Parts: sequence; structure tokens; C-alpha cells
Amino acid sequence: MKIYRANILFTPTPKAFEVIEHGYVAVDEKGLVQGVYQQLPDSLQAEPVVDFGDKLLIPAMCDLHVHAPQYRNQGIAMDLELLPWLNTYTFPEESKYKDIRYAEKMYRRFVRDLWRVGTMRTVAFATIHREASCLLADLFKQAGMGAMVGLVGMNRNSPDTLSNSVDEMVRDQKALIEHLQGQDLVRPILTPRFVPSCTPEMLTAYGKLAKEYNLPVQSHLSENRSEIAWVKELEPESTCYGDAYLRYGLFGQTPTLMAHCCYTAGEELRLMKKHQVFVVHCPTSNCNLASGMAPIRTFLNEGVPVALGSDISGGHHLSIFQVIQYTLQISKLKYADSQGQLPFLTLSEAFYLATKSGGSFFGKVGSFEPGYEFDALVIDDNDLHIDNYDLPHRLERYTYLGDDRQIVKRFCRGQEVEEPRV
Amino acid sequence: MKIYRANILFTPTPKAFEVIEHGYVAVDEKGLVQGVYQQLPDSLQAEPVVDFGDKLLIPAMCDLHVHAPQYRNQGIAMDLELLPWLNTYTFPEESKYKDIRYAEKMYRRFVRDLWRVGTMRTVAFATIHREASCLLADLFKQAGMGAMVGLVGMNRNSPDTLSNSVDEMVRDQKALIEHLQGQDLVRPILTPRFVPSCTPEMLTAYGKLAKEYNLPVQSHLSENRSEIAWVKELEPESTCYGDAYLRYGLFGQTPTLMAHCCYTAGEELRLMKKHQVFVVHCPTSNCNLASGMAPIRTFLNEGVPVALGSDISGGHHLSIFQVIQYTLQISKLKYADSQGQLPFLTLSEAFYLATKSGGSFFGKVGSFEPGYEFDALVIDDNDLHIDNYDLPHRLERYTYLGDDRQIVKRFCRGQEVEEPRV
Repeated sequence: MKIYRANILFTPTPKAFEVIEHGYVAVDEKGLVQGVYQQLPDSLQAEPVVDFGDKLLIPAMCDLHVHAPQYRNQGIAMDLELLPWLNTYTFPEESKYKDIRYAEKMYRRFVRDLWRVGTMRTVAFATIHREASCLLADLFKQAGMGAMVGLVGMNRNSPDTLSNSVDEMVRDQKALIEHLQGQDLVRPILTPRFVPSCTPEMLTAYGKLAKEYNLPVQSHLSENRSEIAWVKELEPESTCYGDAYLRYGLFGQTPTLMAHCCYTAGEELRLMKKHQVFVVHCPTSNCNLASGMAPIRTFLNEGVPVALGSDISGGHHLSIFQVIQYTLQISKLKYADSQGQLPFLTLSEAFYLATKSGGSFFGKVGSFEPGYEFDALVIDDNDLHIDNYDLPHRLERYTYLGDDRQIVKRFCRGQEVEEPRV
Repeated sequence: MKIYRANILFTPTPKAFEVIEHGYVAVDEKGLVQGVYQQLPDSLQAEPVVDFGDKLLIPAMCDLHVHAPQYRNQGIAMDLELLPWLNTYTFPEESKYKDIRYAEKMYRRFVRDLWRVGTMRTVAFATIHREASCLLADLFKQAGMGAMVGLVGMNRNSPDTLSNSVDEMVRDQKALIEHLQGQDLVRPILTPRFVPSCTPEMLTAYGKLAKEYNLPVQSHLSENRSEIAWVKELEPESTCYGDAYLRYGLFGQTPTLMAHCCYTAGEELRLMKKHQVFVVHCPTSNCNLASGMAPIRTFLNEGVPVALGSDISGGHHLSIFQVIQYTLQISKLKYADSQGQLPFLTLSEAFYLATKSGGSFFGKVGSFEPGYEFDALVIDDNDLHIDNYDLPHRLERYTYLGDDRQIVKRFCRGQEVEEPRV
């Protein structure tokens, strides 16, 4: 048993932070939380305590949508909308990951920087390349950080240098599954890029794999108006973009993440609710690529699960704290836009999306309730804490003003995670 | 004469960066730029050169709207709209600046942190308090950083602890003018808080001071729907909110800054253009307080001057680089909203607003053209520069991913500015 003492904040529900000033959390040998306490119970009095003093102890961040091979393009080239941006900047960069040396150099930086910003659980798009995808999974494993890694399938409207056939995708997907056999912290996720990149045969093959291996699925949905119009042309039989995934067994038949959903409404919203498909909200990306503002309050009202994603390199920053910030801000612009009809999100709601809601895709992750895997960050906000703020205000201030400098310890499933070697 | 060598980027026009790889800038004894050169001319060959190697050399940032006494609330308490937010969080904090010791503690941090983020020219709201306002001006002066400091007038709809009479405002304003007599880098600016806080008598007195002393003016305009409706009640004779300032001689009769302008259109837009009133765009604040999205492309199309402001503590971060980022992003949401009718801003346009456009309020500031005051930052982006980016992409990456860590030198009017003591 390990006992940590600090100022503890987490969100068992979206409604409010649970706050324990100078409290304790007990973590068992499996890395699971036994309990949080204001006073240690008698049964734990004999255990040694690691005291983090006046620092904050919070659940670590979960990033449920990020393109690892777009890492080089982070923070540049945001002068186009989605479809021309993919062709001009993104596909050429992803093509480079055929070269395993290039992939290793960049993926090591990527995993190290996820560590820096306090993301301990990641769902990542890789590329079509088997070797690089296995490497990315290995790097997460070596780091001791939780992840789902997606080898990408794309066989239409894609450059030759970045296309795989259905057979190649199936072969390489099975190789990745095999490669991760027996792993539990790092797992595969089926990753058709998006409908415009995948023929019906490709989507059919993915639906079969999902069923056969009972694997989760991730893709993109209703990000941009041109994309939606294009999908309508490509899949005229579908009632909506989401239905184009549903018809192939890729929309909640197994746990499913759909990034963006800026324009999801009506039938598509109904299907997401019915099949409990996750919206992965990527507000930085939606701003940078001029996509639009996803109706997160509406999703929450309807009971559609929502998580957060950095979406590098549509998103410009890897930190989920920054994504929390934008989630709040975009919800406020939606509020202004709706003349106050759609209440904006609170800090505890956005924090919940980044921790317990996103974490639920991995199991019992993202909270400090008993039985949850202990994924945590220790925040030393001394340099930001200039004037007697209360604990929720300290966390708010860290969210808006802090960066990697204040994160002084990281834990994943009970283990302290050291800086990965680049 | 001083000669600096580095990778030089600046924006003589909004359309594009002028980029000089490993170029030179010559700065004379008065701190004015003599010229930028790819090769040093013969006349300068004998001068010693300070070589910044592969670093970037860019104009320093100009922040044209920031509330210095709200510094403690930066990054917290963003759960309300403007009017209740003022009463709940802002006015109580500003009231504390009656205590000069509190003011000194906080203003020292404020000026030091402006230094940190690379802002060398600031137009700041202070409070109603004479002593604290003079102190803030002194701190800028001691630091060697350019500023305009506004002692605030507010005599209605304000708490007793934060109200001054017209006579008090005039007396204290004259004292501040006197205090800054002969100063040139730090100057006073007339600062009626906003129409709801100022009676017609207060606004009349400001108009007289503006004329008598030929002083610039700053205030707030059309930030929020409730505020606009309130001004309509308070000033029924005015054709629009802007006209309520114009009628008192506070809308371009002397150089004028109006923060926000989220809902400015029609007659108000026409008046701003006619009187060349500056919009100070504060996109972080407009997000955080759920105010809305200012139509910056429309202002630029119409020839209304635009500058940028951090608007602490409505805005959450002091860095104008972050404000550039949000300026781009909000313009992209406007673009999406207009279905592509209002083109989004480019990086060079937003950088121009933060430097040469904002700088023009101070004189010839914000560019490296001959005769401009040499306000500059040296950026060591080595840790962000991972893969052979070109110079504009390096600046873009710094804008989106960098922070104070990469700013290694700061200049204001030709002088290197050291870290101010807190």
C-alpha cells in the first residue's frame, strides 16, 4: 500500500470538484485507489506516507484523439480548411513514417511530450505503416503510459504513398493485435481514417475485425461542412454521416470514438445517443481549421458521452489542460450565440470530460474513487499561487496559466512515470 | 550605433512578413532603427556586431488594453458574464488598491510579468486611486518599458469603495499629468471606465480634459449585449453606444482606444471609421466572459484601426502571442459562421495588429523600418525547432507553442530591458 498526502481534487460527477485539503489517497499494490481520506483510518496509520505538502494532486489527463505522425506539424500550417490541409500538409508528413528511423525520432519526442504535459492515457492515430505503428505502441509500453494505438486504413482519395489495400490493412492490423497480445496498458484500436478515405470494402473489413476481435473503433465525424457534403456524395444510401459508419458495424457496436461532431444534430445525434458513441471534442483543432463549434452542451443534455482530444496537428498544443480551457471558451461562445439558451460548461464539467469521462474508455480511470486505477499528477503551483486562492481557484489558475513546469510527478496505474528517453 | 545580427522578421504591412535570414539591424544612439540589411553596407562595416546566431529577432509586443489592478484575478473566476462579473469579482479586487502597499506588491508582479511575456508597450487601466496610479507609472518608468497609464473615473453604478466624484477625478488626473510631466516613454491616458460607470457630468469633465491637455482616451465599447441594452437606457439621446462617447468629445477627437467592439456595426462602425477610433480586440476576454466574437475582418475591410489587448483579468493570459493565436482562431470561427464570406486573418495580419498597428498608438513603434523605435525580442526557439522549419513557420510555432522561456532578450526604444525587481 502507498499513501500520498496532498491537496486532492477530482470530479466523481461533472457537477463539482471533490476537494480534500491536505488529504490522503491510499493506492494498493495493483495501482488501484483504496480510498481518499481527510484523516487516515486506523487501519492505515502504520503505513508510511509520501507527503507532497501544499501541492495539488489531481487525476492525470486523457487525450482521446491525437495524430502521432502529425507531430512535426504541430503549431504550423494552419492557413487552410480540413480537406486541402490534409492534402497539402498532413498526408505528405504521414508518408514519411514508412521510414522507421524517422518514425522513431519523432514518436519518441511525441511520447516524451505527452508525458511532459501530464497525459497518461492516449488514444492515437498512427499511420498505415505496420512497423511504425508497432513501434509507437512499444514506446508507450516502455514509458509505462496507457494508450490505444490505431494503425490507419485508407484506400481512396489518398496519395499512393499513403494508401493501403484492404488486405494490407487486415494483415497489418492483425500483426499489431498479435504484437500487443497479452498487453493491457497498451492496446490496439481499429482506425478507419474517415469515410472519404475508406471504400465500402475497407469499412466492411473493419466491421468484421471489430466483431471478430471485439475491438474498439475510432474515426472522424462531421468535422467540416465540405467533408459532410462529400460524404453525402460518397455514401448516398446513408441517412447521415454517422449512419455510414453504423451500416458497417463501426458506430457503437463496439466502444467507439468519433472525433469532432461539430455539425452533428437530428438523426446523427439520435444514433450517437442510442449507440453511446463518444464525441471526442477537439476545440483547438476546430478553431485552427475553421471547422466550427461542436454543440457540447447539447450532447451532454442528450446523454451522449463526451471526451477531449488535442488532435495534433489540427490542434496546436498537446496539453489537455489547454483543451479544457478551449472547451470552456467555446461553450461560452455557443452560449453567446444562443443568446443564453445553451448554458456554458463549468470548470468541473470540463475537467470531468478530460478525466473521468475520457478515462472511462480505458476502464476505471480518471477519478480517485475506490477501485479506480491511480493515474495522477502532482502540481507545484507555487509560482502561480500568489495570493491565497482556494483550492478550486488554484486548479483553475493552473489550467489557464500553467504549463509543464508545474507538473512535478506523474503516475499511471499506481506507478510513477519517469521522463521517457528521446 | 549598435548592430544586431539574427533572423529578422517583421510586418511593414499586414500582407506578409519581411524576412531576413541572418540579417542585420542598425540602431542609433536615440534607439531608432537606421535600417535592416542582408549585408551590412560599407558605412557600417567598422561597427561591432552583436550576433544572436540562429535566434529570431522580432518587434516586441504591444498590449493596448489591460487592467493592471485585476492582476490577482488572472486565470480565475470566469463563471459569470461581464456585468455580474464586475460586481462580484472585479470591483472588490480593485477597491484594494487604496492600500498602496497592496498596490505595490501586485503592480510590481504585473510589470515584471509583462516583461516576461515580451510586452514592451502597454496601455493600462489603473484604478481611481491617485497614489497607486502614480506608482504604476513609476514602475513602468523604472523598468524602462513604454506605457500609458489611466487613472479611472467612475461615479455611478459603482460600489462606494470604488467611486470618485468628478472633482476628485479631475484633481487626481491633473496630479497624474503633473507627475508624468516631461516623461515621454510613460504617459497618462484619460480613462472613463465605461458609460454605465460615468455620469454625463463625468464624461463632460473628461471631454474637457482631453481638449485642454490634448490627451488620448481609452474606454470600453459594445462588449456584451446586456451592457449595450443598459447604455441605451442610460443615454437615450445617443444614436448608438459609440455616439455616447462622441457627444462628450471622447471618440476620436483625440486618439482613442475602445476595447472589445464585439457588436459594433452600422452607425457605430461608421463613426469609428470616420473618427479613426481604434478597436482593441481582446479575444481571450471575449471568450472567457461569454461576450461574443468581434468582427475584426469587417473592421479591417472598413479601414478602422485595430490593435490587440490581453484584457487581464477578463483575459486569462498576459501574453500577446496568445492573443495573436486567439485572434486567428476567432477569425476562423467567424469565417465558418459566415460560411466563408469573411476571410479569416493570416498570421502576418495578426502579428501586424500586435506590433505595427498597436505600436502606432505610441508613435513609430512596432516595426523595424527606418526611424522606428527599436522595440524588439530575441527568441531562442531551439527547443521548439525540431525539424528544419522555415523562418515564418518558426515564428508561427513560437506563437502557438512558445512561452516566456524562449524570450532571451528584450529591448524598448533601443535599450535592453532587464527583469524588473518584484
